[in-house]
Amino acid sequence: MTPRRMPSVSKNTIHHSSLRSLARSLREGSVRAVDIAESCKTAYNTHETRLGAYKTWNGEGMLDTARLADSLLSSGWDLGPMQGLPFSAKDLFGVPQLPTFAGSPAALPAQWQTPGPLVQTLLTQMAPVSGKTHTVEFAYGGLGTNRHWTPPRNPWDAQAVRVPGGSSSGAGVSLIQGSALLALGTDTAGSVRVPASMTGTVGLKTTKHLWSTDGIVPLSDSFDTPGLFTRTVADAVFAFEALQGSAVPELHSLAGVRIGVPEQFFWEDCEPGITEAVQQGLKELERAGATLVTLDIEHVAEAYDHFQKGGVSPPELYRFLQRDLPDWLETMDPNVRTRMETGKDITAWEYLQRLDRFRAIGALAAQQLETVDVLATPSVAVTPPTLEALEPEGEYARINIKALRNTCIGNVLGLCGLTLPVGLDQASMPVGLLLTARPYSEARMLGVAAQMECVLGTVIERLGTAPRLKA
Amino acid sequence: MTPRRMPSVSKNTIHHSSLRSLARSLREGSVRAVDIAESCKTAYNTHETRLGAYKTWNGEGMLDTARLADSLLSSGWDLGPMQGLPFSAKDLFGVPQLPTFAGSPAALPAQWQTPGPLVQTLLTQMAPVSGKTHTVEFAYGGLGTNRHWTPPRNPWDAQAVRVPGGSSSGAGVSLIQGSALLALGTDTAGSVRVPASMTGTVGLKTTKHLWSTDGIVPLSDSFDTPGLFTRTVADAVFAFEALQGSAVPELHSLAGVRIGVPEQFFWEDCEPGITEAVQQGLKELERAGATLVTLDIEHVAEAYDHFQKGGVSPPELYRFLQRDLPDWLETMDPNVRTRMETGKDITAWEYLQRLDRFRAIGALAAQQLETVDVLATPSVAVTPPTLEALEPEGEYARINIKALRNTCIGNVLGLCGLTLPVGLDQASMPVGLLLTARPYSEARMLGVAAQMECVLGTVIERLGTAPRLKA
Repeated sequence: MTPRRMPSVSKNTIHHSSLRSLARSLREGSVRAVDIAESCKTAYNTHETRLGAYKTWNGEGMLDTARLADSLLSSGWDLGPMQGLPFSAKDLFGVPQLPTFAGSPAALPAQWQTPGPLVQTLLTQMAPVSGKTHTVEFAYGGLGTNRHWTPPRNPWDAQAVRVPGGSSSGAGVSLIQGSALLALGTDTAGSVRVPASMTGTVGLKTTKHLWSTDGIVPLSDSFDTPGLFTRTVADAVFAFEALQGSAVPELHSLAGVRIGVPEQFFWEDCEPGITEAVQQGLKELERAGATLVTLDIEHVAEAYDHFQKGGVSPPELYRFLQRDLPDWLETMDPNVRTRMETGKDITAWEYLQRLDRFRAIGALAAQQLETVDVLATPSVAVTPPTLEALEPEGEYARINIKALRNTCIGNVLGLCGLTLPVGLDQASMPVGLLLTARPYSEARMLGVAAQMECVLGTVIERLGTAPRLKA
Repeated sequence: MTPRRMPSVSKNTIHHSSLRSLARSLREGSVRAVDIAESCKTAYNTHETRLGAYKTWNGEGMLDTARLADSLLSSGWDLGPMQGLPFSAKDLFGVPQLPTFAGSPAALPAQWQTPGPLVQTLLTQMAPVSGKTHTVEFAYGGLGTNRHWTPPRNPWDAQAVRVPGGSSSGAGVSLIQGSALLALGTDTAGSVRVPASMTGTVGLKTTKHLWSTDGIVPLSDSFDTPGLFTRTVADAVFAFEALQGSAVPELHSLAGVRIGVPEQFFWEDCEPGITEAVQQGLKELERAGATLVTLDIEHVAEAYDHFQKGGVSPPELYRFLQRDLPDWLETMDPNVRTRMETGKDITAWEYLQRLDRFRAIGALAAQQLETVDVLATPSVAVTPPTLEALEPEGEYARINIKALRNTCIGNVLGLCGLTLPVGLDQASMPVGLLLTARPYSEARMLGVAAQMECVLGTVIERLGTAPRLKA
C-alpha cells in the first residue's frame, strides 16, 4: 500500500481533515484551535435541529478552551495530542460545569459532574468539550430511544425517523454532523458499537479494566467499559494513542493478517443487505491479502442465552439506583424499567453462576482468538428501525435484544471490539463490520482496522454523505 | 525489655523450642529435621486418640520429607526458613498425595489435591506435612462440629467434651498436641481466630488478597482468607516472614504503641470471665507502656446485622457446590445445610448491596484504624461449649453466630487480625485477645503482638499445659 498523503489543513478543509493532520497543523500554525471550534459550532448550528445529538451544548465553553489552547500552543505549551481538538461526551460522563442527566428527566447530584480519568486526560490535554450527547436512560438500551428527551435522529435516512442506535445515541451523530471530532461513549453490551454501526462511524469498545469507569454513571459494574467514537479508523488510532500514551503498530498491508470468520450465530436472521455488505467487505480484504479462516467461538449461543435472560445488568443497575439515586427509580422510561424489573430479582447464586459461565466461556474464547488477529462479523443484525416500528407491543424488546446480539458477546466474554462502516443495507442504512479480539489487544486490532480502512475506504469514500445532512 | 535469649535446641527440648531456634539449630547441626518429625510423630501417637486433630495423618510422608530436608541441608542446600519444620494443613488445602474431604463424607475430585501458592511455598522450602486437620464441612461454622467425622476435642477440658472452635477445628489442636509446629487454616468469619482463641494458640487472619486462595476449597470468594496457627506470636512472626519473604519490624517495648479499645459491641454479653481476662491483659499492656485510647468503629453493629442475616456466604457456597460438587449437596451436615439454605436465595441486588455496605463501612474503619496500631477486644464472646449444650433446638445456631460475632467484623470490613492467649475464663477455658488492624498492616500488627507476648508471656507461661494432654 502507498502511505496516505497528509494534506495541510486550512480553515476551509477542517471538516474533512484527520485528527492527526489537524494536530500537526495546530502545531505548525496553519490552523487555530478556535477555527476548529468555530467549525464545530457552525456544524452544530446548521444540523442540530435536524439531528438532535446533544442534551447539553457547550459552545461557549468549547470556544473558551480553544482560545486557551491556542494561546498556550503559541507560547510553546504542548499539553498533548488532543490539545485544541473538540470532543463530545455521552451524558453519563462527569464533566465539570456541565450537568449529568444520564438520560433521566432530572440532573443527577453534582458529584456526577466530577470527571473520571478518561475525561480528565482529555481536559489536561486541553481538548475542548463540545457538550454532553444524548443517551438512553442509564445507558440501558441498544436502540437510542428515550421517553424524556427527543432522541437523536439517524442521519442516514432523510425521510423516515430512524433510531441512531444506543445507548450512546448522540455520540455518532455528533461526529456525523461535525460538531465534535471525537466522541466518548460507554459500552456494556454494544452501546458504543451499535450506535457507531448505525450512524456510519467507527466505534471502539475497550477491554474491561483497560480504562477506568470512575466518573461515569454505572449501569453494570461487571461489564461497563468506556469507548471511543471517531469518523475514521485513522482518527480512532490517533485518539487511542493520545489516551493510552502508547503507539499503535502500523501495518503496511493485510498480508499475514488472519481474520476469523464464524459460520454460525452472528449471521442468523440478519436483516436484508447486512450479511451481503459484510461478506462483500471481507472479500475485498481477502483480495487485499488478508487470510480468512473459519472460527466459531465455542458456547457463544449459551452466553447470548444468559444475556437474553437479563444477564447481570438488572440487579447491578437496581442496586446502584436504590443505593444512590432512589428518586430516579420513580421516573424511569418504561422500556428501561421493564427490562430492569424483569431481571432484577434473580437470586445471588444465579447471578454468580452467570458471571462464572461468562468468565469460563470468555477464557475459552480468548484462547481461540489467539489463532487470529480479529474475528469478523456483522456489527448489528438489524436495520436501524423507525420509531413507528417500535410501537407495537413487544417490538421494542424484540428488536432491542436482537440489535445487541452480536456485540454483547464481546462484553460478556471480556474481549475488545471495533466497528467500522462497510456498506449500506437494503434500506440504505449503514452496515458495520464488527471486529472482536482477545483481551487487551486493542493496539493490534486498531492497526489491523486502520489497514482495513485503507482497503475499504473511509465512510465518506465508501458510503458518501449522510442524506439527512443534506435535507 | 531485655531481648529473649535463644537456647540451643537438643533432641529433648524440641517440643518447647521456637521455630526460629529450631531453624537455627537445624543449620548448626545440633538437631536434625528427622528428630523434629519424630517428635511430632510421638506427640501424635501419644495424644491423637484423646484429641482427634487429624482427618488424614501423614506420618511416613512427614518423615520422608524430613530425611530429604536433612540430607539437603547437610549438602548445603538451604531452601528457606521452613525447611524441616512440620506443618499441618486444614483439610481444605490441596496437598499432593493427600485426599481433600473439606469436612464432607467423601473425598473431593483429585484436582483438590493441587497445592495453591501458600502450600507450594512451604513444600518448596521442604517443610514436612504432618497431615490434614479436621474442618467443619466446607468451613461453614465457627464451633468445630461435624456430623460426618468425630470433631477434635478441646484440649483444655479434661472431663467434658468441649468444641475446639471452627471451622479450622483441628489446626490449633495439632499444635497443642505437638504433632505440628505450624498449622494452616482459613478464615472467612473467624475460622482461624475462633479456634485459635478456643485452643489457646495464636491465630493470624491475613487481609483479603494478601495471599492467594488458589488451591483451597472455597466457602466465600468475597471473604475467604488463608491464615496461620502457631504456638506463640514469635512463631507467627517467623512463619509470616518465611511465607511473605519480608521481615516483621521488631519492637523493643510497647512505648508508643497505641491500642484502640472500643466501649461498645465487642464486650456485650461476653460469657463469665472473658471480659475480665481481656481487661486484665490490657491493664498489663498499659503498665508496660502501651497507650490505650477509646475507639469505636462506626457502623460495626450494622455490619454484624448484615452478617447475622447470612452475609454473602450462603449464595457463594451454593453457587460453588452446585457448579463443581453437586453430589455433595445431598449429604451436607444439617447444621451447615440449614445455614446455607436459609441465606442462599437472597436476590442478587441485595447481595450486591450487602457487599457495598461492607465495603463502605470497611473504608471508614480503615480510616479510623489509622489512628492506632491495633484495636483490642475479646476474640470470642462465648466459652467453648460442650457438645451437649449444642443439642437443644436452636442452640447451635445461636451459639455459633455469637462465637463469630467479634471476628466476623475483620472479614466483612476487609481488615487483618490476630488472636493471642490472654487468660482463662470462669470455665477455665482459654480466652483470646483479638487484635484487629487496618488492611495490609500484618507486619506491624505482628511486631506489636510479639512485644505483647513478651509482656503477657506465651500460652505455656501464662496458662500452663492443656489439661487433656495430661489426662
